[in-house]
Amino acid sequence: MKPICLLLCSGVVLASSIFVAVAGAKGDTNPQAASPIYGVTIPEGYRQWELVAPAEEAEPLNELRAVLGNAVAIKAYRERTLPFPDGTVLAKLAWKHVQSPEFESASVPGAATTVQVMVKDSKKYAATGGWGFGRFVDGEPADEAQHQTCFACHEARVQGHDYVFTRYAP
Amino acid sequence: MKPICLLLCSGVVLASSIFVAVAGAKGDTNPQAASPIYGVTIPEGYRQWELVAPAEEAEPLNELRAVLGNAVAIKAYRERTLPFPDGTVLAKLAWKHVQSPEFESASVPGAATTVQVMVKDSKKYAATGGWGFGRFVDGEPADEAQHQTCFACHEARVQGHDYVFTRYAP
Repeated sequence: MKPICLLLCSGVVLASSIFVAVAGAKGDTNPQAASPIYGVTIPEGYRQWELVAPAEEAEPLNELRAVLGNAVAIKAYRERTLPFPDGTVLAKLAWKHVQSPEFESASVPGAATTVQVMVKDSKKYAATGGWGFGRFVDGEPADEAQHQTCFACHEARVQGHDYVFTRYAP
Repeated sequence: MKPICLLLCSGVVLASSIFVAVAGAKGDTNPQAASPIYGVTIPEGYRQWELVAPAEEAEPLNELRAVLGNAVAIKAYRERTLPFPDGTVLAKLAWKHVQSPEFESASVPGAATTVQVMVKDSKKYAATGGWGFGRFVDGEPADEAQHQTCFACHEARVQGHDYVFTRYAP
């Protein structure tokens, strides 16, 4: 149940008691769900990781996002180490992009949508640039067809940055 | 020089050698600049703090933002403690909102623009809801006129959330 709780239950404002109950129920049914193809799970404690960078995704997804990195990832970013070393884990959190009710020109995170995870293991994932991928919606992994698209896109677009889109925000 | 270095020198991609040299020079001239009115400085190590939430600010500022919180702040958010306890520090980092050159629908952080800091000290800042404010551009505090606008806006819009706009992103 822990990954789901980290994802959904820590919200101060949005997590109503009903919402928490639903998240708990989901967690109970699939506590350690792993992504197809790669077997990647939502890493414990990822919401406490340091920020790599925020981002925005336009319509149709219309999301605010933040990429967090574990200690190995952050060290590699700060020291400009490429390729990223084994043990690097990146977690991209996404929320609906919502107009702030309190400030006209500001947008803020709405409901959480997806958590996407990249895990570096150059032996285990040798066929995909050393990276395993996991895409989770409400804590549940997306299907195999979605996971088959991950590496092809990263390979086509950011091969020169070890298949990672996100740069460290200065 | 440390706050400037934390702000500007840790970028992996954007920090060219020229950029680092400029940031270093600025840091040398004003290493511990404090905001007018409040005397708030850029807190050491803030870039390592946990994420509260990302945000977006529309034109004319056109920025991606992320609010980070120190340990006191994060604990208060997670436990839904209001008002925030003394010792809470929030840092809002802002970057220009730039089209990703690698993914059509994505926007990513460009150059860093401002760091804005809120410090809770209910005695020292009793006249402004317990909060001290600091707005920094390239590590230098903005002028007194700008700082005179901080509390009036927070008081008018988010008095019911202890004068803090940002909620914890679930």
